[in-house]
Amino acid sequence: MCSSTSHIDLLIVGAGPAGLTAACWAAQYKMSTRIIDQKGDRTKTGHADGIQSRTLEILESFGIVDPILKQGIHDVDMSHWTTNNETGNIERRRRYEADTGQRSRFGQILLNQGAVEQVFVDHLHKKNVRVERHKAAESLHFSPTADDDTQQFPVVVGVRCIGNNGEKETIHARYLIACDGAHSWVRNQLDVQTDTVSEDSTWGVLDIVPITDFPDIRQACSIHSQPDGSIMTVPRENRLVRFYIHLRGEMKEEAMQHPSRSPRTMVEMAEGLMKPYSLTYNYCDWWSIYPIGRRLVKQYRPHERVFLTGDAAHTHSPKGGQGMNVSIQDSYNLIWKLGAVITNGADPTILGTYDTERRPVARQLMDLDTRLVQAYEKEEKDISKGIYEVREQYAGFMAGVDVAYTHSILITEGGKDGDSNLASNITLGMRLPSFLVVYLCDGAPSHLAQRLTSDGLWRLLVFPGDLRQPERMKALVNFANIFSKSSYLAHLQHISAPEWRCHIIELLLIQSCPRSAVNLLDLPELFHPFDDTMGWDYWKAFADDRDQAYKGYGIDKGGSGCLVLCRPDQHVAWIGSMEDTSGLESYFSSIFGPLR
Amino acid sequence: MCSSTSHIDLLIVGAGPAGLTAACWAAQYKMSTRIIDQKGDRTKTGHADGIQSRTLEILESFGIVDPILKQGIHDVDMSHWTTNNETGNIERRRRYEADTGQRSRFGQILLNQGAVEQVFVDHLHKKNVRVERHKAAESLHFSPTADDDTQQFPVVVGVRCIGNNGEKETIHARYLIACDGAHSWVRNQLDVQTDTVSEDSTWGVLDIVPITDFPDIRQACSIHSQPDGSIMTVPRENRLVRFYIHLRGEMKEEAMQHPSRSPRTMVEMAEGLMKPYSLTYNYCDWWSIYPIGRRLVKQYRPHERVFLTGDAAHTHSPKGGQGMNVSIQDSYNLIWKLGAVITNGADPTILGTYDTERRPVARQLMDLDTRLVQAYEKEEKDISKGIYEVREQYAGFMAGVDVAYTHSILITEGGKDGDSNLASNITLGMRLPSFLVVYLCDGAPSHLAQRLTSDGLWRLLVFPGDLRQPERMKALVNFANIFSKSSYLAHLQHISAPEWRCHIIELLLIQSCPRSAVNLLDLPELFHPFDDTMGWDYWKAFADDRDQAYKGYGIDKGGSGCLVLCRPDQHVAWIGSMEDTSGLESYFSSIFGPLR
Repeated sequence: MCSSTSHIDLLIVGAGPAGLTAACWAAQYKMSTRIIDQKGDRTKTGHADGIQSRTLEILESFGIVDPILKQGIHDVDMSHWTTNNETGNIERRRRYEADTGQRSRFGQILLNQGAVEQVFVDHLHKKNVRVERHKAAESLHFSPTADDDTQQFPVVVGVRCIGNNGEKETIHARYLIACDGAHSWVRNQLDVQTDTVSEDSTWGVLDIVPITDFPDIRQACSIHSQPDGSIMTVPRENRLVRFYIHLRGEMKEEAMQHPSRSPRTMVEMAEGLMKPYSLTYNYCDWWSIYPIGRRLVKQYRPHERVFLTGDAAHTHSPKGGQGMNVSIQDSYNLIWKLGAVITNGADPTILGTYDTERRPVARQLMDLDTRLVQAYEKEEKDISKGIYEVREQYAGFMAGVDVAYTHSILITEGGKDGDSNLASNITLGMRLPSFLVVYLCDGAPSHLAQRLTSDGLWRLLVFPGDLRQPERMKALVNFANIFSKSSYLAHLQHISAPEWRCHIIELLLIQSCPRSAVNLLDLPELFHPFDDTMGWDYWKAFADDRDQAYKGYGIDKGGSGCLVLCRPDQHVAWIGSMEDTSGLESYFSSIFGPLR
Repeated sequence: MCSSTSHIDLLIVGAGPAGLTAACWAAQYKMSTRIIDQKGDRTKTGHADGIQSRTLEILESFGIVDPILKQGIHDVDMSHWTTNNETGNIERRRRYEADTGQRSRFGQILLNQGAVEQVFVDHLHKKNVRVERHKAAESLHFSPTADDDTQQFPVVVGVRCIGNNGEKETIHARYLIACDGAHSWVRNQLDVQTDTVSEDSTWGVLDIVPITDFPDIRQACSIHSQPDGSIMTVPRENRLVRFYIHLRGEMKEEAMQHPSRSPRTMVEMAEGLMKPYSLTYNYCDWWSIYPIGRRLVKQYRPHERVFLTGDAAHTHSPKGGQGMNVSIQDSYNLIWKLGAVITNGADPTILGTYDTERRPVARQLMDLDTRLVQAYEKEEKDISKGIYEVREQYAGFMAGVDVAYTHSILITEGGKDGDSNLASNITLGMRLPSFLVVYLCDGAPSHLAQRLTSDGLWRLLVFPGDLRQPERMKALVNFANIFSKSSYLAHLQHISAPEWRCHIIELLLIQSCPRSAVNLLDLPELFHPFDDTMGWDYWKAFADDRDQAYKGYGIDKGGSGCLVLCRPDQHVAWIGSMEDTSGLESYFSSIFGPLR
């Protein structure tokens, strides 16, 4: 038995969706990262299965959304069924079409968690990152350090290989990300306090290939069979259907006392609730029984160098199909900040925003979950209406696109100087919605979001208005001159900043007159930078020829334009007028300090 | 040096686009196939780079279009430039938007041939098919056999490993597919006659990262600089641009006599033609010089057991971006027929249709090429108009979607019995256009073509009309009864045909009333077959809720419907009324003979 020691920037404990997202994001930065998991393999069956719009946007920003879209179920109708008190049979009350395309260019996908994990694992493999499996963290302590010296390795984790000879290793990390799930070992080591709510309610969940004459079995259904109980069904890949069944009374006892008979018992119970329809199965992929409860940690960052994400930070019922999404989004929020601190010298105070941005989201999730569980479990007349109302009210939150982070060092305060009128449909702190624009150089259509990839760059979107108007062109040239001559701003832009450690910002131009009216090479070189070998970069300038972007963002096409700054996670950080380069400079200097 | 012998169903010689398509298609059948190539690797740079609509449809039917769409350039504008005689400078005359979505759900993609080959190689790898590289065919003879006994292995090919110890092998194959390019060894062995046209014209081609102030460099351009010459440019992946330059006089001599200086010479020549714009480069990916010529073999099947595909059968200039496409489409036409003969007992006479279907396409390609070359080279006033007219006239042919195969054992004759009025926009022999429909079971939208995958099945599309009308439901039930009770037809359908060697046909239902008005399980079981483990199949029935399919196919939504049969390559084989099951039976019995 030998023991070794290593020093790395990030240690990720746990390779579920939160941990894999963290590893994937970290691989975009020049920092050393390792990801360990005590299990021998990825999730094989069951667990989470809803992938919401915002998560799909994030996966696209990493270039890995295609296999998810290909494997998953999309855009299915939803139906609500309740009992007809006269016949005692359930009847369809409402059927809704999926509301795709309303809030995001992606709808919702239904696919098992393991398939999502595999897409991350395949991507990491191409990036030469390997999940180290069968490795368990077994000790955690901190070596003394000045808190703000990010170049030290104060987190000391003892790791043991499970099996064979139990090799041990000591890892010294700058930062530790705990993605180790509901029973988080890291959280327990640090004795993190939680707010916990347990309800006297138990549900069964199972993935089966159902054999049934229930006509809506391939739709997402809520079935409320009064007074006996309720069911939620979700259609899935490979003919599977996910069933959630509220277990009550004898059924609950039976299911819990005889685990080996549980799936059969639960399906019999479901069949009783779905009268007059029959339900049976020959193939069960996965099942579980869980009590309804909620837990939220009181600190997302229990130590200066340790962060909790995903189930390690928050647990709740699976009603809203949120778990995997909020976990992925936690890591997506955190890692670029660490990347900026470790590789670009950003002020470590920005790490404080992880808690202030993500804990309120989990809090909101707890509220949603409470209301959804109540809606499913309470015995009232128009149950489907109750569920529908909750879902309607939280639709944008559940899709993940209505999340707005509050004012901080990373999000400027809105409203002052009337800047909010410059782009009246953009909300500071929310992720930028995407619209179809065309490249100025060739007319090829592109969603603007396809240029906001997850590569660690802030993106400044320059909306100069209609460049056929001489004063608009003049304002653009003026902006470009100031930007290029401000040593601070110019050095943020990657192509001319060898002395900066890394790229910080990319500029994109979206102008409002037809593409044929403007020649890209006549615009300031800032928007078509030149490289000796590669020539000009033609892919930074767009025209709003589909008439979507200016309208969608609430920017006056004929007006004097504006600047919109997106963080590396596409959330809007700052909005200013075409002249407000000083506002921009002050935003960045608070994060990166003065130019070195 | 050892020598071995093996027996296989198909031997594919050559692993370019035609050979790889053949291997990919063959892997869908239960037959043994090998693919050999004398080169050590796939195409690395240059060569073909246009991928047309129909080719993308075919790639999608194999499930491999996504990486092509992701890597390639799409939907760029096209511009035509000619000289202003007063200034001597070139000027833009027209700029067209790409006409995407008109003829196919895919437009045109620009991507180098090697990337396309890699996508095939990756896919074959997943199917456990390996391209055997460094293997050259060096002898070919035929052992005597009764021509129609497809169970014999009359094609005897001697194969030698190139390099090391030159191992030899003798392969006995049922059939040989020659995909070995313009200088085809197989074609030469069989002394196949060709029609050959050589023109006194030479072009240079090169892939560079251009450094130029020519504003339309990222568009597809034709530049006619009178009287000096013409250029065609095509924007490509990774900042590359493909240039085709008509070489004349001294320039031609210079380029041909000093090959090492050729790219530089050609770019200088191009710059001269693009006055007042400058053109230079620092990176050249590939270049070549070629004489304009055309060659078409007189037989696509020079021996009962040997087929020529792709460049082995036809060569021409690259003007129309057709080469790789027609080659892929040759193999796509051929292999399913061999699969049906070898694995399903189809009559070998169907193999005769390879020549009668594909040689006319090549003939048309020669005509197009002749006209395009003339349009680019001739010195007339409105050259761009000439090119535009040829491109307009051949647009559907160039996209690959207007190809109509003539009447044969595989395509019934149209017009009789007024059947052509049943679906007035469908042409017998053409590939079925695709429209968006929704699944009856869940409302999820799908392009109909996504269900016409390349798996060897004929697909019978049943358009029963509006099933809310009792007589239409009656006609559907009647059709299903006859179909199910006809021992012949029932045995074509895979799920109930254990005694048939393999699947032959799948039925799909597209009905015209709203999905919520029909319950799938109330329809004949033919459209939701049952399996003990997997339950009902919910994915064979659609509603025309987007109001595209009936209108698009020219089928009366309120009328009495029709049956449309597609071959495994999606070309329409037969159209009949809902009652015409005997027509259907007669189509299949001519191919598969009586039921065994």
